[in-house]
Amino acid sequence: MPHASEPTQRSRWSVALRFSATLLVAVVIWLIPAPQGVAVEAWHLLAIFVATIVGIVLEPMPMGAVALFGVAATMLTGTLTVNDALSGFSNRVIWLVLMAFFIARGFIKTGLGARIAYCFVGLLGRRTLGLGYSMAATDFVLAPAIPSNTARAGAVVFPIVRSVAHAFDSRSEDGTSRKVGAFLIQCAFHGNLITSAMFLTAMAANPLAAQMAGDQGIEITWARWAVAASVPGLLSLLVVPFVLYKLYPPQITETPQASQMAKSKLAEMGPMKRSEWFMLGTFVLLLILWIFGRTLHVHSTVAAMFGLCILLITSVLTWEDVLREKAAWNTFIWLSALVMMASFLSKLGLIAWFSETVGGLFTDVGWIPAFLALSLIYFYSHYFFASNTAHVSSMYAAFLAVAVAVGTPPVLAALVLGFFSNLFSSMTHYSTGPAPVLFGAGFVQLPDWWKLGAVVSVVNVAIWLGIGGCWWKILGLW
Amino acid sequence: MPHASEPTQRSRWSVALRFSATLLVAVVIWLIPAPQGVAVEAWHLLAIFVATIVGIVLEPMPMGAVALFGVAATMLTGTLTVNDALSGFSNRVIWLVLMAFFIARGFIKTGLGARIAYCFVGLLGRRTLGLGYSMAATDFVLAPAIPSNTARAGAVVFPIVRSVAHAFDSRSEDGTSRKVGAFLIQCAFHGNLITSAMFLTAMAANPLAAQMAGDQGIEITWARWAVAASVPGLLSLLVVPFVLYKLYPPQITETPQASQMAKSKLAEMGPMKRSEWFMLGTFVLLLILWIFGRTLHVHSTVAAMFGLCILLITSVLTWEDVLREKAAWNTFIWLSALVMMASFLSKLGLIAWFSETVGGLFTDVGWIPAFLALSLIYFYSHYFFASNTAHVSSMYAAFLAVAVAVGTPPVLAALVLGFFSNLFSSMTHYSTGPAPVLFGAGFVQLPDWWKLGAVVSVVNVAIWLGIGGCWWKILGLW
Repeated sequence: MPHASEPTQRSRWSVALRFSATLLVAVVIWLIPAPQGVAVEAWHLLAIFVATIVGIVLEPMPMGAVALFGVAATMLTGTLTVNDALSGFSNRVIWLVLMAFFIARGFIKTGLGARIAYCFVGLLGRRTLGLGYSMAATDFVLAPAIPSNTARAGAVVFPIVRSVAHAFDSRSEDGTSRKVGAFLIQCAFHGNLITSAMFLTAMAANPLAAQMAGDQGIEITWARWAVAASVPGLLSLLVVPFVLYKLYPPQITETPQASQMAKSKLAEMGPMKRSEWFMLGTFVLLLILWIFGRTLHVHSTVAAMFGLCILLITSVLTWEDVLREKAAWNTFIWLSALVMMASFLSKLGLIAWFSETVGGLFTDVGWIPAFLALSLIYFYSHYFFASNTAHVSSMYAAFLAVAVAVGTPPVLAALVLGFFSNLFSSMTHYSTGPAPVLFGAGFVQLPDWWKLGAVVSVVNVAIWLGIGGCWWKILGLW
Repeated sequence: MPHASEPTQRSRWSVALRFSATLLVAVVIWLIPAPQGVAVEAWHLLAIFVATIVGIVLEPMPMGAVALFGVAATMLTGTLTVNDALSGFSNRVIWLVLMAFFIARGFIKTGLGARIAYCFVGLLGRRTLGLGYSMAATDFVLAPAIPSNTARAGAVVFPIVRSVAHAFDSRSEDGTSRKVGAFLIQCAFHGNLITSAMFLTAMAANPLAAQMAGDQGIEITWARWAVAASVPGLLSLLVVPFVLYKLYPPQITETPQASQMAKSKLAEMGPMKRSEWFMLGTFVLLLILWIFGRTLHVHSTVAAMFGLCILLITSVLTWEDVLREKAAWNTFIWLSALVMMASFLSKLGLIAWFSETVGGLFTDVGWIPAFLALSLIYFYSHYFFASNTAHVSSMYAAFLAVAVAVGTPPVLAALVLGFFSNLFSSMTHYSTGPAPVLFGAGFVQLPDWWKLGAVVSVVNVAIWLGIGGCWWKILGLW
C-alpha cells in the first residue's frame, strides 16, 4: 500500500499559495454585488466557476480534484441543489467521451495503433516529408475514437517518431536532432492539433464546446462537426507538414531505410491478431454508427457504449482494463463538473446577459468583421492558457453568445469556435497535453517551437477561415 | 502494458455458456406478451433487468461489465431514452457510496483502521471472547464510513484476526485452527453482517434498498436507518459472539498475551500520525453531519463530498488514490445501473402491478402474519444468492411493495427488509463478499460454517423482530 509522500516544506507552501489564490478569486467575485439583470445564484455560480478555472490553471491539485471541489462548493453554498450539482455525471456527451477513452485503450493494448503507424511509414516513409505525413495520417485515422489527444500523440505516435528518429541516428541530446527527429516531432504535434479539430470525439474539450452550444440551442452532432471540418482539415493536414518541411527542413531528406524498417517491424508483428481484427471491426462499426447515427436513430453515446460492450465480449478489453483507466475517470470528473457549471451559467441567464452587454458594443459593425475579431481574439488568447479545457470552459460559451448576438449564423459560430479550440494550441509548448510531451522530448528548441507555432497558426487560420469559409458557404452554414 | 490473457478453451466455453444463458433469459421474457395492466416498455425493461441480475449471478463477466451491458441494452432496444438510461449515474445516493469508498481508503492508507483494531484488542483481548468482541467492535466503529463490507472485513479486520491467531499458534493448515482462529473468524464474519445492517453507509446495497423505498415514496434517511437499527444491532453484537463462544468454543480461552501484543503493536506504531488525526477528524465531522444532516440542511452526499475534499486538502489522500480506487468505480457502474433500472421499473408501474397482484393473495390475513411470512421468505431465500446486491435488486422492491399493499407500515417494512438485506448473509460461505474471504482463510470447516450460520440467522431474526419490534413500536414506526 503506497503511503502519501509527505510534501516537502516548499511544495506545501506553493500548494497552499495556489489554493489560497483560487479561494480568494471565489470570495472576491462572490462578494461583488451581482450586476443589474443578473440573478444572485448566477453570480455566485460564476464565482465558483471562475475559481474552478483558476484552480485548473494554478493546479494546487490535479484537475479532477479541483473540479470536484467546485462541485462540492456549489452544493455546500446552496448555490445549486444536490440533484442539479450532480447532473453533469449523467450527461450523455460525457459518457460518449468516457466510452471513447476505454475504446482508445484497445488501440494501444492490441498494438493496432502501432501497426497503423508502421503501415503509413511503410507506404509514405521513403522521404522525410513522407514520414511527416505518415505521422499526421496515423493521428488522423485514430482521431475519431481517441478523445485524448495526449494519448494519441503520446502513446501511439510519439514512440514511433522516436524509434524512427533513432534509426537515423537523430537524437535529442547529441546535436543530431535536426537530422530527422525535430521535423517529425513538429509534424506529429501540428498534425495532432488539426486532427483534434476534425472530430467531435478527437479531443476531450470538443464535446464540452458542443454541449455549451447545445445549451444555447445550437445542435452540433458528430456528423455535422466532421463534415464541416473535413475540407479545411484535410487541406491543413496536407499543407502544414509541407510548410514545416520548407521552414524547418530535416537534414536527411531521403529515408528509404525507414520504409524498410517499418516493413520489418510489421513482419515482426506478424499477421493481424484476433484482438486487432475485433478492434478494427469495432472501430469501423463505430464510425458507421457515428456518421449515420441520425438516420439509424442511434445516438453517438449509445454507439460508443455498444462498441465498448463488443470489445469486452470479445476479450479485447477486460473489465479490469476499464477500471484502471485512470485518465478516463479523471476526465469523467472534471468534464462533468465543467459541463454542469457551464450549463447552469447558461440556464441561470448569465451567458445571455453577458452577450447582450458585450454584443451591444458591436452594433454598428456587420457580423462578419465582428465575428472575425471575436474568433481571432479567442484564438490568440490561447497564449495565456495551458489547457484547451480551461480555455474552452472559460471563454467558449460567452464568445459564442456574443457572436450570435452580433448576427453570426449560430451553427457557423459554434463550429468555428469549436475548431479554433483545437487549432489555437499550435503556438506554445504548454498549450495542450501533447505539447509538453513532444516538446519535452528535446528535439525542438524553444524559439523554433514558438516561431513555427506562430507561422502554423496563421496558415491554419487562413485555411480554415478562407477555404473553410467557402466550404461552409456550400454547406449552407452561412 | 499487460495484454489480455488468452482465455483457455474451457473457460471461454464456460463464459460463452453463461453469457448465452443470460441472453436467453432476456429474450424469453421479452417475447412473453406483457400481462394485462403492464406497459410494454415496463415488460421489456423487466426482461433486461432480470437478465442483468442473472448475469450478475452467473458472472460471464465482472459485475460492473454486466451492469454496463444492461444499460447499453436499455438504450439499444429503445426501451429507455439515452438520458433516462444514464440518469442513475447522477443519483445522489450513488455519489454518497462513491465518496464513502474513497473515504474508506483513508482508514486503510493511514493505518487508523488497524490502530483502532489494536486498541480494542488491547482493551478487551485478555480473554478469547473479548478478542471476538474486539473484532466486532472494530467493524462497528468503521462501518458508518466504509460502504464496502468486504473492505472492512477483508482489509482491516482479517489481517488482525490472522496475526492474533498466529500469535497463539493457531493456523488454518495444521489442525490448530480451533485454538483461537476459527472462533475469531466467525466473530469477524457475523459481526460484519450485523454492523452492515446498522448504517445506511455500511454496505453498498443499503442505499440501493433506500433508493427503491424512495421510489415508492418511503423516505429513509441516514439518521432514521441508524436510530432504528441501533438497539437490535447493539444487542446482536453483544449476543452473537457469546452464542458462538458457547457453540463453537475456542480451545484457548485466556489470552493475556493478545492484549500485550496489541499494546506493543501500538507502541511500534508510535503516536497518531498527522494523517491519522485528519482522518479521525474528518470521520467525526462526517458522523455529525450524517446524524444531524436534516437539522443542518446538509444532504449526506454533500457531507461525504466535503469529507473527501478535506482528506484531499490535508493530503491524507491524493487524487491518484481516488483515481485508482477500482472497487469504487466498479461499484459506481453496477450500482448506478441497478438503481436506474429499478427506478424505472417503479416509474413504469411494474412494481405497483406486481404488488397489487401478489398482495391480493394476502387479503384475508392481517399485515403482521403476512409481513412475517414475506420477510422470512425474503431472508431465507438468500441461500440461493451469492451477493447481497443481486438479492436486493431482484427482490427488495417487489417484496416491499407487497408488504405495503397488505398493510404493513411503509417505513417499518422498508427498514426491516433493509436490515434483513444484510443479516441474511450469515447462512452460507458464498453469501456476500466477506464470506469467501473469511471462509477461504481455511480456519472454519464448511459444515461448521453452515450450522453456525443457521443458528446465528435464527438468533438475529429473533433479536431484530422481537426486541427490534418493541424498539420500533417505541419509535412509532408501527
